[in-house]
Amino acid sequence: MKFGQKVEALLTIALALSVLNAALCQKSKNTIERESNAFSFVVYPPVFNDILVNELETPVQFRALFYLNMVTYNAWSNYHPTAVDLFGRSRYKRPTEEHTLENKNTAILYALLRLYEAAPQSFGGSAGLPAFFKLMNDRGLDPEDRSLNMSTAVGIGNREGMDTARLMRIDGWNDDGSLTSSDTNYAQPFADISGYEPKNTPWRISFPFKWQPVLENNGLGFFFRQEHVVPHIGRSIAFSQNPFEVRRRRVRSPYLRPHATVYNANSADVRNLRGYAEGVFKRSAELTEQQQLYAELFDNKVNAFRTEENPFGTPSIGSSVRFFILGPQLDLSLDEDVIYAAASNIATFDAIVTVWKEKLRHDAIRPTGQTMRLLFGKRKFEVWGGPGRDNTQIAAGDWQPYIRTMPHSEYPSASSCACSAFIEHALAFTGGRDDFAFNLTFAKGSSRFYPGKLPAADVDVSIRTLSKWLHLCGQSRLWAGVHFEPAIEAGVKLCRGIGRSSQQMVERMVGGQPQLTWLKWLPQEVQRFWEQ
Amino acid sequence: MKFGQKVEALLTIALALSVLNAALCQKSKNTIERESNAFSFVVYPPVFNDILVNELETPVQFRALFYLNMVTYNAWSNYHPTAVDLFGRSRYKRPTEEHTLENKNTAILYALLRLYEAAPQSFGGSAGLPAFFKLMNDRGLDPEDRSLNMSTAVGIGNREGMDTARLMRIDGWNDDGSLTSSDTNYAQPFADISGYEPKNTPWRISFPFKWQPVLENNGLGFFFRQEHVVPHIGRSIAFSQNPFEVRRRRVRSPYLRPHATVYNANSADVRNLRGYAEGVFKRSAELTEQQQLYAELFDNKVNAFRTEENPFGTPSIGSSVRFFILGPQLDLSLDEDVIYAAASNIATFDAIVTVWKEKLRHDAIRPTGQTMRLLFGKRKFEVWGGPGRDNTQIAAGDWQPYIRTMPHSEYPSASSCACSAFIEHALAFTGGRDDFAFNLTFAKGSSRFYPGKLPAADVDVSIRTLSKWLHLCGQSRLWAGVHFEPAIEAGVKLCRGIGRSSQQMVERMVGGQPQLTWLKWLPQEVQRFWEQ
Repeated sequence: MKFGQKVEALLTIALALSVLNAALCQKSKNTIERESNAFSFVVYPPVFNDILVNELETPVQFRALFYLNMVTYNAWSNYHPTAVDLFGRSRYKRPTEEHTLENKNTAILYALLRLYEAAPQSFGGSAGLPAFFKLMNDRGLDPEDRSLNMSTAVGIGNREGMDTARLMRIDGWNDDGSLTSSDTNYAQPFADISGYEPKNTPWRISFPFKWQPVLENNGLGFFFRQEHVVPHIGRSIAFSQNPFEVRRRRVRSPYLRPHATVYNANSADVRNLRGYAEGVFKRSAELTEQQQLYAELFDNKVNAFRTEENPFGTPSIGSSVRFFILGPQLDLSLDEDVIYAAASNIATFDAIVTVWKEKLRHDAIRPTGQTMRLLFGKRKFEVWGGPGRDNTQIAAGDWQPYIRTMPHSEYPSASSCACSAFIEHALAFTGGRDDFAFNLTFAKGSSRFYPGKLPAADVDVSIRTLSKWLHLCGQSRLWAGVHFEPAIEAGVKLCRGIGRSSQQMVERMVGGQPQLTWLKWLPQEVQRFWEQ
Repeated sequence: MKFGQKVEALLTIALALSVLNAALCQKSKNTIERESNAFSFVVYPPVFNDILVNELETPVQFRALFYLNMVTYNAWSNYHPTAVDLFGRSRYKRPTEEHTLENKNTAILYALLRLYEAAPQSFGGSAGLPAFFKLMNDRGLDPEDRSLNMSTAVGIGNREGMDTARLMRIDGWNDDGSLTSSDTNYAQPFADISGYEPKNTPWRISFPFKWQPVLENNGLGFFFRQEHVVPHIGRSIAFSQNPFEVRRRRVRSPYLRPHATVYNANSADVRNLRGYAEGVFKRSAELTEQQQLYAELFDNKVNAFRTEENPFGTPSIGSSVRFFILGPQLDLSLDEDVIYAAASNIATFDAIVTVWKEKLRHDAIRPTGQTMRLLFGKRKFEVWGGPGRDNTQIAAGDWQPYIRTMPHSEYPSASSCACSAFIEHALAFTGGRDDFAFNLTFAKGSSRFYPGKLPAADVDVSIRTLSKWLHLCGQSRLWAGVHFEPAIEAGVKLCRGIGRSSQQMVERMVGGQPQLTWLKWLPQEVQRFWEQ
């Protein structure tokens, strides 16, 4: 490189930097505050991001996000004029002059670390601990400081972290396996405590409307059969809904006699099931590239998903709405962001518990290749033929959905339930304002299932409202081929009201009113388990 | 660093390098030849090592090693005065002046690449292809050169690679899933073609002597049930044994009425099963650190396993014997090494096919926690308590073996069968010489199952003879807790003679006699499927 070229290059870089600085300088005080959030912008990306999104099953994922956001809220509440924490406490509250960004974030960091340490299996394993320690050290904080001096942010963080961790231990999810094992060294985290057994095998349907476990394989010769993930959590705990409210939430089976065997099945039910199944093939044959992209997007797993505001991509749809839509467009402060996240995560957590209860009650069959074989034998159907290929005719039993069939029963859709609670809460939070545009680019070849092949070119998409976002969330499960049609609407219906009650619950907590009806979920003897 | 220090440092490095050079210079001509082997020393470590050892189920692993070594032999045979390849061909043989190391290795490289390209799912997926392309480019070879000019090493490699790949397609393993799917895009590699169904579920034993699939989990809430890996391969193909010979190889069930249900089980059988199961607990309670290390070593998966000769570790026990014991101690040339490896891998491949046939015939129950629960209810047993912990008393059903229970039925042991074929062949190859010492160090904390915790300090081990090695291979499966006692001896007995006949088969091929009895395994119409 000649001298002139060098100068030119340096000037170009300087120019780029000054443009970048100008862009950065436009940040409002609120934005700077919000983006200081130790959970969302400091800890989440390096420690939890990949593993939460890629390695955990949906309900475990939602639970992890709930606790991470709840412990953040709990630590933060001590630096707010009126708020009480999830345990209804205000006694550790610090005086106004200490309500600094630094104190809030220090307390949040210690709270998150204590929570993570206490139950790494709830957050995808302990592989993220070194990164967490490092980022604390980088900020001059000692991760081994376990002080409980409640006049310091460290003590407050440690206390809230440990108390929230205690809640995880008794929330009924069996996250350390201690409910099902007599020795910790032999424990199996999240093992079923309800005694669920699938009614069908991969090879035989005895109960045509009941769940049939899928035979999966790793493409290298290892075959395994799915078990129903956490079948016991429908009885565990919800926060914005008491046990009676959750029990009362029900949706009707799409079948007249859902418990029938193959010998006494109602013929209208059989006709309906075949009709739903034919709908699955039809959607596969008519699958557009955009539908495939939405299927991946709302499966929470699009690694290369980018927005204008976030050219580096973000993997979770819920977090994207928070970080890149509502946060910037409403210009939320740190406090507002923490409050939003607490309520939003209570909403989705309670939605998951509720929909799981119904999933297990219905225990409904999924559209899988195995099921199709049993419904249609060797009959051939036209289906999607793979990226860049024409549709193909295949035997019913050879078909597979576009995305992986999740290891839980079909009805209702957990996605449509959780998305509807999520959006209902967002609308409650914004006071009903719906027009938040979501512009994103699916980069060429960024598909997780067909990397390098889909999409064939960059695809720009604009989702103009939250309601539209909710609609796509539900429909995308049909395009993905993992649900029959009735499950989507049932999920929406089942979870109606959860978003609003979560928002009310958190508003009251922020206003200083303890919200402790969730204690009704716990046995009498474990109530008030936290330090008082 | 001051100038004087710098000089000192440089001198130290120079000294170290000259010591190293001296050590390297001691290599014999044979050693230099052998270590030029493009398969073992060039392609295997970067391309196949990790994935073959860590990701593949045992039978798929043995098959992969067999084909990699066989295609190496096939390419090489054209540069030997008398040898014919597996297809009995000598027509592509090159004149003596071309029998150079470079030609042999070039032919081997192209043969391996064509084989790998044709069936990546047989070798752990296509993730290794870029590394393979790179190492060819680094040698000045064009990986895209698909010439079939049979007067060049490139053409010979391509031809042998493609023909061997064709054999993989019809060997009955269904490695591309085409036997069980009507469309390639929806195919499931290695899917069962025999219609095997387990007779028990993880929750209930109906047939007390039959296989009960294990419920596994990823420690993060995903539970899955094992399916029997490749249940169909007992009918596929063997090379040193014709179909009649394999069918005739049988071992007796350890039970008088192995097909009984819980209602009509023979009481002596039940007593025996309980006795075997109590033996499993007893071995767990008496488990020594050295036994744990052997259990890991012979599970083929000790990442940090080091020998004096190989301070960097090697992951596969079979390869270790070849690369670090027999090779150096017998000072094998390249030709001898290729011949050894072809026969050794025919022996283990045929052993696996044979033992799989018997495994499926007996379809026998494994010692797992589930089984123990059903045998002993809540009765407690003393078992190993974890690294650095005292023994613990746990409910029978909570126990798990030291290493993962493999996804295939129990009787006979595939390890003891394959090890005995492997050692029998080695003894045939050495003319009966048994005293090959195997010195190795288990580095502190190098355990795969308890990394950082086991062993507590470096442990030096010396296995003085091949027979002792074989004995440990079998016993280690008992220490690991994955077998009942009778399975070990049965594996040895079942596979007796396979090592010797493999050696004879390859000796004849090297002598110029085509060995084509394996064609008896194939349907008439696909015989002589290779280019002639």
